[in-house]
Amino acid sequence: MIQNMPIDECPGGITSPQGFLAGARGCRIRRLTKDVAMIVSEVPAAAAAVFTQNKTQAAPITVSKSQLKKSPYCSAVIVNSGNANACTGERGLNDAWEMVRTTATALGIPEDQVVVSSTGVIGQYLPMERILPCIAALASEVTRDGGRDAAQAIMTTDTYAKEVAVTFSLGNSVVTIGAMAKGSGMIAPNMATMLGFVTTDAAISQPLLAKALHTANAKSFNRITVDGDMSTNDMVIILANGLAKNAPIAEHTEEYTLFVAALEYVLIKLAKMIARDGEGATKLIEINVIGGTTEDEAARVAGAVANSNLVKTAIHGRDANWGRIMAAVGYSGVDFDPEQVEIFFNDLPILGKNYAILLDEEKATQVLGEENIVITIHLNQGSWGARFWTCDLSKEYVHINASYRS
Amino acid sequence: MIQNMPIDECPGGITSPQGFLAGARGCRIRRLTKDVAMIVSEVPAAAAAVFTQNKTQAAPITVSKSQLKKSPYCSAVIVNSGNANACTGERGLNDAWEMVRTTATALGIPEDQVVVSSTGVIGQYLPMERILPCIAALASEVTRDGGRDAAQAIMTTDTYAKEVAVTFSLGNSVVTIGAMAKGSGMIAPNMATMLGFVTTDAAISQPLLAKALHTANAKSFNRITVDGDMSTNDMVIILANGLAKNAPIAEHTEEYTLFVAALEYVLIKLAKMIARDGEGATKLIEINVIGGTTEDEAARVAGAVANSNLVKTAIHGRDANWGRIMAAVGYSGVDFDPEQVEIFFNDLPILGKNYAILLDEEKATQVLGEENIVITIHLNQGSWGARFWTCDLSKEYVHINASYRS
Repeated sequence: MIQNMPIDECPGGITSPQGFLAGARGCRIRRLTKDVAMIVSEVPAAAAAVFTQNKTQAAPITVSKSQLKKSPYCSAVIVNSGNANACTGERGLNDAWEMVRTTATALGIPEDQVVVSSTGVIGQYLPMERILPCIAALASEVTRDGGRDAAQAIMTTDTYAKEVAVTFSLGNSVVTIGAMAKGSGMIAPNMATMLGFVTTDAAISQPLLAKALHTANAKSFNRITVDGDMSTNDMVIILANGLAKNAPIAEHTEEYTLFVAALEYVLIKLAKMIARDGEGATKLIEINVIGGTTEDEAARVAGAVANSNLVKTAIHGRDANWGRIMAAVGYSGVDFDPEQVEIFFNDLPILGKNYAILLDEEKATQVLGEENIVITIHLNQGSWGARFWTCDLSKEYVHINASYRS
Repeated sequence: MIQNMPIDECPGGITSPQGFLAGARGCRIRRLTKDVAMIVSEVPAAAAAVFTQNKTQAAPITVSKSQLKKSPYCSAVIVNSGNANACTGERGLNDAWEMVRTTATALGIPEDQVVVSSTGVIGQYLPMERILPCIAALASEVTRDGGRDAAQAIMTTDTYAKEVAVTFSLGNSVVTIGAMAKGSGMIAPNMATMLGFVTTDAAISQPLLAKALHTANAKSFNRITVDGDMSTNDMVIILANGLAKNAPIAEHTEEYTLFVAALEYVLIKLAKMIARDGEGATKLIEINVIGGTTEDEAARVAGAVANSNLVKTAIHGRDANWGRIMAAVGYSGVDFDPEQVEIFFNDLPILGKNYAILLDEEKATQVLGEENIVITIHLNQGSWGARFWTCDLSKEYVHINASYRS
């Protein structure tokens, strides 16, 4: 039971829901580890996705968007890490289509039921001579236990694989949602900001699935930032194959509300894992803005603070420099009265109304030494709130990104 | 002669124009170095300023705005470093007014002819018991040679004092513009992004002076970024005292064009110094966007690239990761055709149209080893361009900002 909701978290990931298989292989794209993953649904699944808003769009984004326009069903997803297949022009597009066709042929499914995704270095061509035989082999290797392998294969600079699964009851049926994600660098808000793959055995129509994904995505993956850099390759896709045999979820029902709550739980959990595992991160920082005039304004304030290099370096150094927080709130573009703002680090009051400095340096340093820090900013303007998740900015971030390609 | 313009750079700064005096004193606000500076014009000077757009506005910003509304003339500027007098409420406002009053009394000038400015840590009260006697003493210590001392006194994490002066002829008069600035951290575009003090002996009306400052500021201080964090205290002020005895500059004349060009030269030179001296910086990076549909769009693209942590860390590591540049161009919010983009590092072609990879890794690494790097991005959409200046992002930036207050 999660926060009084009839939702239970369970071990597992994308192969936890019924009828989903997965597998992974090392194809030496960039490293000697597993780098190609395949997800398969035993029956065609309703599919919905959100994609990066970056105008510089990788080939697999173009191809997958086109695929989901052609067919509301998807039976397989093929993903590679190590190479983003972005800024690769005609040849990159052909390569992405070739990955789709090879997957469809190997699995014996219609070509328009395959989606493709890539992550890694920009501006290099995929080693197709190594990838295509891998895909052919994977088609007969996917299993009900393959979720973990797939979660590992999509990692780039991630330091651990990111998986979540939850179950809940819909009528007499037990429904499962499973998911995996990768993040780490080039993480910014505004749409899907990394790769996320979600599977469920719930029966739900494609339009309603799309609606649920947009709702849950807005409060999870759209609310994280590592470095403010939006990627060319981001996508989050959800497949719902109906094998739980629940009565199809209808809009404006308790079942739909529960489904969205469960999906939001899964995506927020992954989003927080991504923020915590940001490149060089040592802490997960939640920016919790309350008392906003609208949710959008609260989110803009939270986003500005979460993106502030100065706030993130200060927290890295356990320095309770609340002035930098006030400065970021001030340039968020949102109208507010600075003298009404209150700031807390976890439960510790730092700043009161009328700039009352409540900060106890010793206690604050102690709180900032923790691994999970919630910075609450009360605007005292209205009753809307929004959360953002980010990480501290360390020398290690610079180290990783000064030599990513080498 | 600068770039075929009849403008000459000369040694000096704010006391180079006729009739300007300056001085500085150590008042132990935070350090044992000089930290309070005074600038005085022997006769009342027309004054114009631009201020931070941050809603969290420091007390000296509120006070100086009010002063310039009351009077178009200014005879003295009082500045301190080490403490921003921001987020200090009523008491902070009283302190800023007290600095103004003490300056006016000590100099024997009207109170509404004094402007005040502060920079440093946010959220601490000024040590008025040490500052006020300093101000009183400074009033009799300002000299025609004091520009350098003042430029040093306004530094925070700056590693060197920033001064520029130029001369040019207007009719039979020789006009001088002098300036000093401080920058280093919390540097973002959108209005005055640091402290800048400009003096000139040109005769020019206050409204026209304001117009010239806005024009020149838009292409200089509004085009630099170190960390994307907009400060609470930024201001740029210009004082014109008319002692060069030129015929007052009129709008739509060659003289006005020349004055703006000279002012722009001075401000761009300071802006580049600020970017180069960004916290932890080892390089000055110019983002030169050409082929844009409008100047505003070109500036948005340049700003997105200049603000990208990933681009800045890659350049720090001499990694020619042009994919990150394409990603930043893509999320700038500007419409463009990615396949039309060309990228150069200094004169070295990196990316051609249709994603033609022209990159010679060895040559690129050599270029990226230089201290001044121009990244030219040709959008091939129109004929407008814009430049932005920034610096690389190093571990030293994190080091400085993880412990700024300590």
